[in-house]
Amino acid sequence: MTGYRQAGVDLGGAERHVRAISSPVTATWTDSVVGEFGGFAAGVTIPPGYVEPVLMMSTDGVGTKLELARRGGRWDGVGYDLVAMCVDDLAAVGARSIGFVDYLAVGSLDADRDRTIVESVAAACRIAGCPLLGGETAEHPGVMEPDAVDLAGAVMGVLERGSELGPHLVADGDVVIGLTSPNLRSNGFSLVRAVLGDDIDEHVELLLQPSVIYAPVALATVESEGVHAAAHITGGGLRGNLGRVLPPGLGARVDPTTWERPRVFDLIAARGVPAPEMWSTFNMGIGFCLIVDPSVERQVLEGLAEHSARVIGDVVAEDGVTIG
Amino acid sequence: MTGYRQAGVDLGGAERHVRAISSPVTATWTDSVVGEFGGFAAGVTIPPGYVEPVLMMSTDGVGTKLELARRGGRWDGVGYDLVAMCVDDLAAVGARSIGFVDYLAVGSLDADRDRTIVESVAAACRIAGCPLLGGETAEHPGVMEPDAVDLAGAVMGVLERGSELGPHLVADGDVVIGLTSPNLRSNGFSLVRAVLGDDIDEHVELLLQPSVIYAPVALATVESEGVHAAAHITGGGLRGNLGRVLPPGLGARVDPTTWERPRVFDLIAARGVPAPEMWSTFNMGIGFCLIVDPSVERQVLEGLAEHSARVIGDVVAEDGVTIG
Repeated sequence: MTGYRQAGVDLGGAERHVRAISSPVTATWTDSVVGEFGGFAAGVTIPPGYVEPVLMMSTDGVGTKLELARRGGRWDGVGYDLVAMCVDDLAAVGARSIGFVDYLAVGSLDADRDRTIVESVAAACRIAGCPLLGGETAEHPGVMEPDAVDLAGAVMGVLERGSELGPHLVADGDVVIGLTSPNLRSNGFSLVRAVLGDDIDEHVELLLQPSVIYAPVALATVESEGVHAAAHITGGGLRGNLGRVLPPGLGARVDPTTWERPRVFDLIAARGVPAPEMWSTFNMGIGFCLIVDPSVERQVLEGLAEHSARVIGDVVAEDGVTIG
Repeated sequence: MTGYRQAGVDLGGAERHVRAISSPVTATWTDSVVGEFGGFAAGVTIPPGYVEPVLMMSTDGVGTKLELARRGGRWDGVGYDLVAMCVDDLAAVGARSIGFVDYLAVGSLDADRDRTIVESVAAACRIAGCPLLGGETAEHPGVMEPDAVDLAGAVMGVLERGSELGPHLVADGDVVIGLTSPNLRSNGFSLVRAVLGDDIDEHVELLLQPSVIYAPVALATVESEGVHAAAHITGGGLRGNLGRVLPPGLGARVDPTTWERPRVFDLIAARGVPAPEMWSTFNMGIGFCLIVDPSVERQVLEGLAEHSARVIGDVVAEDGVTIG
């Protein structure tokens, strides 16, 4: 037991992995990218037009949705979940994502699986319009099970100083616009796994549907006047995430009959999860919200038609988010 | 089994964790930070003086050094390892770190441990002069063992376009300056664990010594004329990492008698790890190198006295890194 290979770290495999992902990674690179793939870090310039750019970061993982991917042997969607979790968090403040890095931890390298995961991250970065600048694939022999995987990532983004969306802009009478989510995105999977038990294998395809990436379309809208706040609906659900962008003294009334609940939520609720728990854990079919001035409602809805945007509620002069 | 709490996700614990780390996190914030801790992402402005700023990112984890921290129940150094791995990678290109995010994945929350880890990341960020802008603590019940921990992070940094250090600047006759590392930093732990077996518990304190963070001092030097390239000595050792910053046709001759090997490396070698494997896995006492023009040698050595910098070799007109 004197070699790194025997200690469970596969250096040759790591090199082959880096070669295999080179082409999908560089395919995400836009004109703003400076540098090269390989030994040296790639950089980006700030897109033109910013007078006082503020840089932001966000980091997230895919959580235990990965365990389902492992059970189902399906890795081609997890990159969408990862990138969506990060870039949509920045989009909710009004920041444009300009660079992404991924961190993949595995018990033991698996060439096909690991290439598929990074390809999936790269494909999602292309949709997000965000270059994948680098990443780390770490082998943790003897600490993680050989087939165990964790995936996290971080994004940097830019916004013009003073243009942050948020509660300071929200006013009584504003309209809440919801962008639909056909699936669970990447939240609530520990609960899903607990309530479905071994039956989960029958529903792998449905549960693994990749997250929609709202950022590009949402940001185009955000740049128009009259958009006051936005919320990425993650853990905590509509109540938690919408609540965080409302100022003290204002609340929101959401009408749950304004959109159709995707059937995956019925499947989970049918296992005995009470409604309040459902609403505070899952997105329930709305993955991203904008809070806008009524005067721009029609224009915003048109801009977001791709995500079946609709008015789901309004801002009212009483604290808290009421649903129904 | 219908509640998130029962599914193993401790939302109250997560909230308490966020409150506990608020003060150490915001203590890392410099005047460049815009925003607030909590619901909304914090941002940073680019430090003054950049004409054409290029933004870079780097991501890394602490690897299986964490397993040793778990065995030893000592978490107060791991943040130094994490921050060092990321910011010193950027420093090697000449980029200044301006924002950091951490990703902590655990089987089950442990208030003391998790606070200690984030405090340690924050303390290291202060040393690195890099604001900790956010982070994610993810609970993975049923997927990770309750007491399992993984820690990764990502940094963004800035450098002036065209000022990147690298092989394009390196010339025959340049001097290789080494900054000493008193310990393993965060590399080679899978090999260490394999060769030491259960004896590892006798050496936990020695093995867990936190990584030196070279970036602040190294960057002050890098800004002077005559510094051509730099290498952060991580996995791959001096040969691998120095080799990556040498252009085709040039190599380096390193004299290993120019510094004293910390005893931790003897301890590992004594378990039968052959010298070539030692040199290609561990830093062997040199954690960061600069390749400089001989005319600035003295000045650079003086600037890096804090890290017992010394000339360890020179650049020669033959490919490859020779040691000894």
